[in-house]
Formats: sequence, structure tokens, C-alpha cells
Amino acid sequence: MMRILILGGDGFCGWPSALHLSAHGHQVTIADSFVRRRIDDELEVQSLTPISTLSERVSAWSEVTGRSIDVAEFDLAHDYEALTGLLAALRPEVIVHFAEQRAAPYSMKSPDLKRYTVDNNLNATHNLLAAVVQTGLDAHVVHLGTMGVYGYESVPVDLPEGYLTVSYPDRDGHLHTRDILYPTSPGSVYHLTKSLDQLLFQFYARNDGVRITDLHQGIVWGTQTEETNLDPRLINRFDYDGDFGTVLNRFLVQAAIGHPLTVHGSGGQTRAFINIRDTVRCIRLAAESGGSVDNRVRVMNQVTETHRVSDLAHLVAQTIGAQISAVPNPRAEADENQLSARNDHLLGLGLEPTMLASGLLQESVEIAQKYADRVDVSRIPCTSYWNNDRRSSAQERA
Amino acid sequence: MMRILILGGDGFCGWPSALHLSAHGHQVTIADSFVRRRIDDELEVQSLTPISTLSERVSAWSEVTGRSIDVAEFDLAHDYEALTGLLAALRPEVIVHFAEQRAAPYSMKSPDLKRYTVDNNLNATHNLLAAVVQTGLDAHVVHLGTMGVYGYESVPVDLPEGYLTVSYPDRDGHLHTRDILYPTSPGSVYHLTKSLDQLLFQFYARNDGVRITDLHQGIVWGTQTEETNLDPRLINRFDYDGDFGTVLNRFLVQAAIGHPLTVHGSGGQTRAFINIRDTVRCIRLAAESGGSVDNRVRVMNQVTETHRVSDLAHLVAQTIGAQISAVPNPRAEADENQLSARNDHLLGLGLEPTMLASGLLQESVEIAQKYADRVDVSRIPCTSYWNNDRRSSAQERA
Repeated sequence: MMRILILGGDGFCGWPSALHLSAHGHQVTIADSFVRRRIDDELEVQSLTPISTLSERVSAWSEVTGRSIDVAEFDLAHDYEALTGLLAALRPEVIVHFAEQRAAPYSMKSPDLKRYTVDNNLNATHNLLAAVVQTGLDAHVVHLGTMGVYGYESVPVDLPEGYLTVSYPDRDGHLHTRDILYPTSPGSVYHLTKSLDQLLFQFYARNDGVRITDLHQGIVWGTQTEETNLDPRLINRFDYDGDFGTVLNRFLVQAAIGHPLTVHGSGGQTRAFINIRDTVRCIRLAAESGGSVDNRVRVMNQVTETHRVSDLAHLVAQTIGAQISAVPNPRAEADENQLSARNDHLLGLGLEPTMLASGLLQESVEIAQKYADRVDVSRIPCTSYWNNDRRSSAQERA
Repeated sequence: MMRILILGGDGFCGWPSALHLSAHGHQVTIADSFVRRRIDDELEVQSLTPISTLSERVSAWSEVTGRSIDVAEFDLAHDYEALTGLLAALRPEVIVHFAEQRAAPYSMKSPDLKRYTVDNNLNATHNLLAAVVQTGLDAHVVHLGTMGVYGYESVPVDLPEGYLTVSYPDRDGHLHTRDILYPTSPGSVYHLTKSLDQLLFQFYARNDGVRITDLHQGIVWGTQTEETNLDPRLINRFDYDGDFGTVLNRFLVQAAIGHPLTVHGSGGQTRAFINIRDTVRCIRLAAESGGSVDNRVRVMNQVTETHRVSDLAHLVAQTIGAQISAVPNPRAEADENQLSARNDHLLGLGLEPTMLASGLLQESVEIAQKYADRVDVSRIPCTSYWNNDRRSSAQERA
């Protein structure tokens, strides 16, 4: 049993992770500012699934399982005193950090939202690190990063887990070899903030010995976990809108309502994926396996498989029956790329991957169909353009 | 003649750069929040030299040279509307960005100052980039970085200018070669923010085509330039305190008042240096030579020579006559390191380095002696400790 603080514990990954850790006997505290719920209001969209308030959620969890989860409400990025107060009182052994704005399209939607994403994510992560040092906690920080820090250029290697061993000639012309953080190449302001996080972690691990695990997660699909399935009030959120909806979940909703699956550009983009059930297991495996050693951040790739976007579209079209429609790509990115990533760390810790082929896709199909009447079809397209070129291309075509 | 906006144009590098660019016929506007002057008040210390207010400074410049400099007061990190308003009205062709908290010891002084440094520097740089894109300016951004982004580990190469060509085996075991940003290894929260800046620049150059030059500057010595020497009201600031004073200037003040030169640790740290007269020339050469091409940030090392700290102490001790005293090093860093850096870019643009051996050290000595009665000796030691180990070591010895 460990005392675990989950920052951002009301969100899509945070909530099921909190339940999973609680179910495994840990003493869980959730901190959240509820900004994600306010963004739904701002965007005039709602989770496909009808989610309960956090108070209702933790009451239901206690009722169903007899396990209690504590809750604290504050803004990690801008209320440092609340953070240090909570750390000093709780003295968590593990701090799981989900408390960042996590949507690439939202981060590219306007200058103000670019600025919000940088300000929020950087100050959130840095406040946490400064507070861990200030309070003298020997806590293990587990952070949700993204595969997007590596970038999606086609590279001729299986992406390593965080570090790359490179060589270059020294002054005398002999090859010098060293391990470096994999050269980052983020594709949006959101991904950029996770690249910035990496440097904050590197510094605080080296200078202050903070123990940190950075989990570079692929795109999550699915909604429910073993724990959120226990009661309707525990249901997890399911985002299908053009900002927060991830590609596979958007396809499922489109298919459920008989809308063509909208593929950005050629669909030749290859991405890494993971089911939400594996996300929560990875968080637990990371938390339970302790932190980094030697003042070096432990980086693990939290992915189980890679697919081309167009292959996913065909899979969904076959499973449910749907048309596929190509739309201009709002993102500044290559039309096609190769991607293959190592995930030895989490496999070594015991992860048994839930693959797309496992039949779980059917569960997501059923959720999408069950709640199809909650869909606002006008919110499905992505209306964030990465730059002026992409905006012009889309407007010319429209 | 170009329209040039200088963000942070009231500071130690910003002010003489503004004058130098104005003297060379450019139309200069200074923006500043005057936070650097407020930090003097907060730290209860003052510039060794008696500096005038910015209004007095620009009036004197106009009186002496007939050239006008415009002034805008706002906080780049937190007043985005003022920034976009100024950019839209002025439409600068070059924007020189000095508007960051620039002292490593100050950035390590307390959790609040670590947080201030990250919040201020990141939001300042990101606001600038977002605003350039939003206003559709084709402006060249010239940013003052630091050699500290490379880190001060002993490496077996002459530090390249920003990029390193590395090789690693591809999937088939063949060597794959690419250019990467030199792996960063910042030694303080301040240096960390300049490493973070690099990733912001990389993203905005790639995604939006913003033209950017990042100048990785060494430690500046000296105070006056050709332009600041024209009138006493134009005098530049000279920081000698443990937070903002750079090592050589601190030695000069210590020698001027008959205090032993305090060397941190063994003094075996090797650092890169540049005279303030070369700083202003480099800024002009960067501005006049245009921006980056191919969506790649242009990085230039703004340094002219490297020295071991203990050698500098002996040079000053010989020149003025002084004792040398070793004190515990408050920084978490190697006792000794090798350092050698390329500076081909700026030499290629016409920089003729002002070396320490040039006799200009004598000018600094005279300034230190002239204003010796303004020195508060209690403010010379560095009282910021990089981490708990360094604090404990210093306290044990005290």
C-alpha cells in the first residue's frame, strides 16, 4: 500500500487510474481544478458518456467497493500554496501527474489557447518539481508524457525509450559515444509542452535527485476499465469532438451515427496506440516499481501497437459499416510516416497488451451506439489549423 | 535602416545594444517592464555605476546625438495585448529579445524565484512567438541565449554552434547520420529556461516559418561601450552582487575595495567570455545579417575566449593587487572542466574580438575604483545554493 496523489485525477486517464490504484489497495488522493469540465462548457460540447461529478464518483466508488478516495480542488499551475500544503500534509510516496492540457488541436486553436497551454502545462510541472524539493519529499513522480515528443518523421529505428546512444567525432577524430535524450521534434504546441517537461525533469533529477518516471503514451482508445464498469456513476469520459477526441474514438462515433469516417489527408500517418485498460495498468506498474536511479529520469514508452490511420478507418468501417471520407489535414505534418516503438520496459514490468484485435473494439462500438443520441455532429470536425498554409488549403477546398 | 524593437532594452545588455543600433542608423524602440530595477530594490543592492532612469537616458541620447529612441513600458510575459498592439503599430523588421530573468544564482535563491524565472522567461518568449505569428509579421527574432545550454561537462569537442551531427545504427545496423540540437545540459533554472526557449524556437521556426537567431552568449565582462561613454547619463549598469554580478566584474570590485577575490571551490571551472563592446556588435551583426532559412533556427556562439576562473582571479590579482580566497561552491557543478567553443559565425560576419589582454580590463578597473564608495561588501557573496547538498557543505564550513 502506498500513499498516491493523482494530479488531474478527474480526467480521461486520471479518473480510471485513480480507481485502478484504489482497487489495488493504494491510498489515493485526487487533486483537480475541474478545468477539463469547464473546457467542455467553453467548447459547447459534452462527453459522449454521461459522467458524474467527482463527488458523485468517489461516493459511488466508496459505496460499491468500500474504498475511499480523498479529493482536493486547486489549480496546480497557479496555486502553489495549495500544492505545498497538500504535499506537506499528505506526504505522498507517489505523485502521478496528469494535470496538463492534453489536446493538440485545442493547443493550436488560437493564440490565446497556445499561450494557455504553455503557461498551464509548464507552470504545473515546474510547480510540482519545485514543491517536491521544497517540502523535502522523497516522492516518486510519475508523469504522463506523449509519443509525440519523438516527432512523427520517418526514422530508420525502432524508437527507443527516451534515450538514444549516438556517436560523433571528437577533437582528435575518434568516435565519442554518449546517451542523450532522444532529439525531440514535437508536432504541436501541446506536444511541445511535453518536450519542455522532459527538460524540467532532466534538470530536477540531476540537480536535486528527484525520482521521476516519464511515460510516453500513444493515442488512447476505449473508454471503460474493469473499475469504471462497476457502476454507471463511475463511467469514464469519451471525447469525440475535433479538439479532444482521439482518432479511433472519433471514427467509432462517426460510424455509430452513420457519418462517414473523416480521415485527415491521405491517412498515411502511422501512430502508436494503447487501450485505456492498459493505460491504468501501466500507471500502476510505473508507480509500484519505484523511481529512477542515478539522477536519471526513467522513460518508458506506453504503447502496445502502431497502425496507419487509414487502416484504422477501414477496420472500423468493416466492423460497423461506414463510408470513409478524406478531408484536408489541418495539421502541419508529413502525409505518410513509418513508426515503430520499443516498449520493453512496461512488458518487463508485466504488461500484457490489450490489442485492437482483442474484441474490445466491440465494447467501444456499443458505447458509441448506446449514447449516439448525445452526439453533436457539428463538433466532430477538427477546426484548428496548425498554420496559415493549412488554413488556406482547407479554405480553398471548402 | 531597419525598424528594431528591443525587448528588455533598459538592461545591462539591452541598453548598450539599443544605443549601438541607434548609432548605426536604425530606428530603435525599447520595451521594458523595469523589473530589473525593482529586483535591485528587492535585493537591497544597486548598480555599482549610477544609472539614470530610462527617460533620462533616451533624452540624453537625443541631446548628444540627435537620434531618438522610443519607449514602451509593459510586461512581455503577462501583457500580451500590449505586445500585439505594439507589434501591429510598429511593424518591426527585427525584434531583439533580452526580456528574461538572466541571473543563475537569483533563479536558484528560493522556490518562488525558481518559479518566477520559469514563468517569466517561458511566457515572455512564447508570447513573442505567438504574437509574431498572430500579427503576420515577417520579423527576424534575435534572442540572447547562453553558452550554459550546452552544459559545462567536459566534452571532447569544440562546442559547435547549436547543432551537432551524430550517428547511430538504424534497424539494419547501418549508421544513420543527422543534425540535432546539441544535447542540452543546463546547470541552473535560469539556464534551463534558455534550453526551453530553444525548443520553442525550433517549433515556431518549423511550424510557422518564424525567422530566428539564437545567440549563445558567454559571460559578459566590462561595462561601457563607445556609445555609453558619450555622456555620464548614458552609463551602463555594473552588477557586482552575488546574484547578478558576473565573475570577472565581481573580482574587479573586490580588488577595488581591497577585499580578497572569492573563488568558488577550486576555480577549475572553465567558462566562455565576451566583452560588452562585442556583445553590442554581435547583436548588430545578427540583426543586420537577416534571419534563418529553411525553417531552421540560426544559432551562433557569442563568445570570444575561454578562461579558467582561477586564472581570471590571478589576472585581476596581478593587475590591481589582491588576495585570493577559496569559498565553498554554491553551485552543483564539476570542480573542473574543459571548454572550447566555435564562434565562426560571428567572426564570419565581421566580429573583431576584444580580448581580455587588450587593455580594456584597465577601464573596468577604473570604473570599479571610481565608484568603490557605492559598494555594499555584504552583497558580494553568493548566498544561493543549488541544492541541499551544497547548502549543507557551505554551512558545515561556516
